[in-house]
Amino acid sequence: MDYKRRMHKFQVHLGEKGLGGAFIVPGSNLYYLTGLNPLGTLERLFVLIVPAEGSPTVIAPRLYEKELEGFNGEVVLWSDSENPYKIFATKIKETFKEGEKLLIDDTMLVGAFLKAKDVLDKYSLYSMGPVISELREIKDKDEIKALKKAAEIADKMFYRLVEEKLEGKSEKELANMIEYMIKNELGADDVSFEPIVASGPNGANPHHRPSDRKIRKGDVVIFDYGAKYLGYCSDITRTVVVGQPSEKVREVYEIVKEAQETAVQRVAEGIPVGDVDAAARRVISKYGYGKYFIHRTGHGLGIDVHEEPYISPGNTKLLKEGMVFTIEPGIYLHGKFGVRIEDDVVVLNKKGIRLTEAGRELISV
Amino acid sequence: MDYKRRMHKFQVHLGEKGLGGAFIVPGSNLYYLTGLNPLGTLERLFVLIVPAEGSPTVIAPRLYEKELEGFNGEVVLWSDSENPYKIFATKIKETFKEGEKLLIDDTMLVGAFLKAKDVLDKYSLYSMGPVISELREIKDKDEIKALKKAAEIADKMFYRLVEEKLEGKSEKELANMIEYMIKNELGADDVSFEPIVASGPNGANPHHRPSDRKIRKGDVVIFDYGAKYLGYCSDITRTVVVGQPSEKVREVYEIVKEAQETAVQRVAEGIPVGDVDAAARRVISKYGYGKYFIHRTGHGLGIDVHEEPYISPGNTKLLKEGMVFTIEPGIYLHGKFGVRIEDDVVVLNKKGIRLTEAGRELISV
Repeated sequence: MDYKRRMHKFQVHLGEKGLGGAFIVPGSNLYYLTGLNPLGTLERLFVLIVPAEGSPTVIAPRLYEKELEGFNGEVVLWSDSENPYKIFATKIKETFKEGEKLLIDDTMLVGAFLKAKDVLDKYSLYSMGPVISELREIKDKDEIKALKKAAEIADKMFYRLVEEKLEGKSEKELANMIEYMIKNELGADDVSFEPIVASGPNGANPHHRPSDRKIRKGDVVIFDYGAKYLGYCSDITRTVVVGQPSEKVREVYEIVKEAQETAVQRVAEGIPVGDVDAAARRVISKYGYGKYFIHRTGHGLGIDVHEEPYISPGNTKLLKEGMVFTIEPGIYLHGKFGVRIEDDVVVLNKKGIRLTEAGRELISV
Repeated sequence: MDYKRRMHKFQVHLGEKGLGGAFIVPGSNLYYLTGLNPLGTLERLFVLIVPAEGSPTVIAPRLYEKELEGFNGEVVLWSDSENPYKIFATKIKETFKEGEKLLIDDTMLVGAFLKAKDVLDKYSLYSMGPVISELREIKDKDEIKALKKAAEIADKMFYRLVEEKLEGKSEKELANMIEYMIKNELGADDVSFEPIVASGPNGANPHHRPSDRKIRKGDVVIFDYGAKYLGYCSDITRTVVVGQPSEKVREVYEIVKEAQETAVQRVAEGIPVGDVDAAARRVISKYGYGKYFIHRTGHGLGIDVHEEPYISPGNTKLLKEGMVFTIEPGIYLHGKFGVRIEDDVVVLNKKGIRLTEAGRELISV
């Protein structure tokens, strides 16, 4: 990835919007702009100061000296016996004129913010999210390559799963197995989030945490997981049934499948993303299950597993070439079961192309 | 754990300090006060409002309805088509008088904070960290039991590690193995952080991220990892050598071991925590390695793997019965190797008792 070019583009972007600069903390924005991904900074101040013009500065604990070798800008290291917020305050005052408009990383913690509040209050602060999203939500070729690779790992994982004997295994066991295989056998850097395995009635909770419940014959089982490759995420959901599906399961499954397919087909450059949500929702409502589809249709995907664009009802943001997001409608029947099918989709040559391609037919395992 | 009692204590604490209430987001503070640990809230507003008097309110995405069944207070659920920050603003104005002093969870993200800033600016906001730490840093019997269990898992893991053939395995492979075993075979809920395996010259970076480097004969290898049990963390570091240690390795190892032992012995109710740091530092300096001990001696341990009290130079906070923290001096020789030994220690019956008890002799594997 060409970090120099990204940083330059970001600085130009700041200048064009009349912004003086930005403060960035470890996480996806820092990684996007610099490739830095310091581990375990936790409560220790690690901040990147990017002025619209001139060289960026990073203030970091001395622990990270080695990782900062070769950083393209000024490096200020602090020791455990120093107060890093004093250093931060001095640097802010040196770099920016009082009253300037500055962006602040949305993922900075309020605890850190409050420690620097006296100085920061002298500036007009804005959320960095919307500004950096304009860059991050459009993926370049290298990014799409990484996202495709992450999606392929998710596909491979699914084919491993359907070969497993699920009956008798607990949700937790399967979730840990997914995590271990993704990390060790399928070439990913990491999982993109803790895998979700939701069986039987647990499937009716879209954010169910894998439990000790053991899979039984007749269970509908939802697998929702993803891989990271070069820092980029995939996110897939497949729903399978253990043994023969009931009529009801078959009916609900086919509705979700039709809704998902319809939404993927709806993707086109230039349409509002809300239209993609509406396309999925319309299908589910048509069959009378509208009130059981209790979440948005999808979310953008990149370095973060949830990012812009959000495929929500009424969202008027327009789809652009290079945007990547999930399409994941579901139906959740409290006390019974749930069905969700999720793919990652990129806008390419004006239409939606699936990055995840594992089979979407109802599989009985 | 008795969450009702904790919440009550927190509210009394707020009242005594003349504070009107607090805002709490998912994470360790929410878990501490309510036992709630919602998964994957990410950018979706999920906030607990605790007034000094009266019943708390949680505002959460409708997705979490099931997890909030039985919540001891008011539950306000919002749907993806609503603006949760409007609901939040209304609730704040209903609950608090303008100008009141309110606490805000340090782990709230600045992005969320900025969205509620217009309302929040009508109050005096303070960091919640110092206030809730006064409660959280003193562990009760149930908490110490959970911490001890987490420590035992870490010990067991170390005995598994020394049985492994390390030579030829990569740092990453070993780190993933540690994570998998802790989660699947040793009865933990989770790891308390991504395990660190740092071999040879990589050991000189205290926060090294496990790499593809394969372990070789003669390597000094640092293992730093921990387990979570009922949400409580352990954190252990052991340093081993592959094959016969050189004179230099032996010398450095013994110094670190002496420093660690001296610091553990120094622990006593009523002394400033800085004295514990000084005890370790004095030993290492005495042998001429002072400048190679580049971090603080330790950190508190509980629901968070880094919390109060921080065992840093000059910290005047006094040790109290029930405090739990790590003692982990190290020596880092750039380009060569590193040695660190870390145990978890509780202040019990006025002195320091190790929770982790795996052998600290230099082991050659």
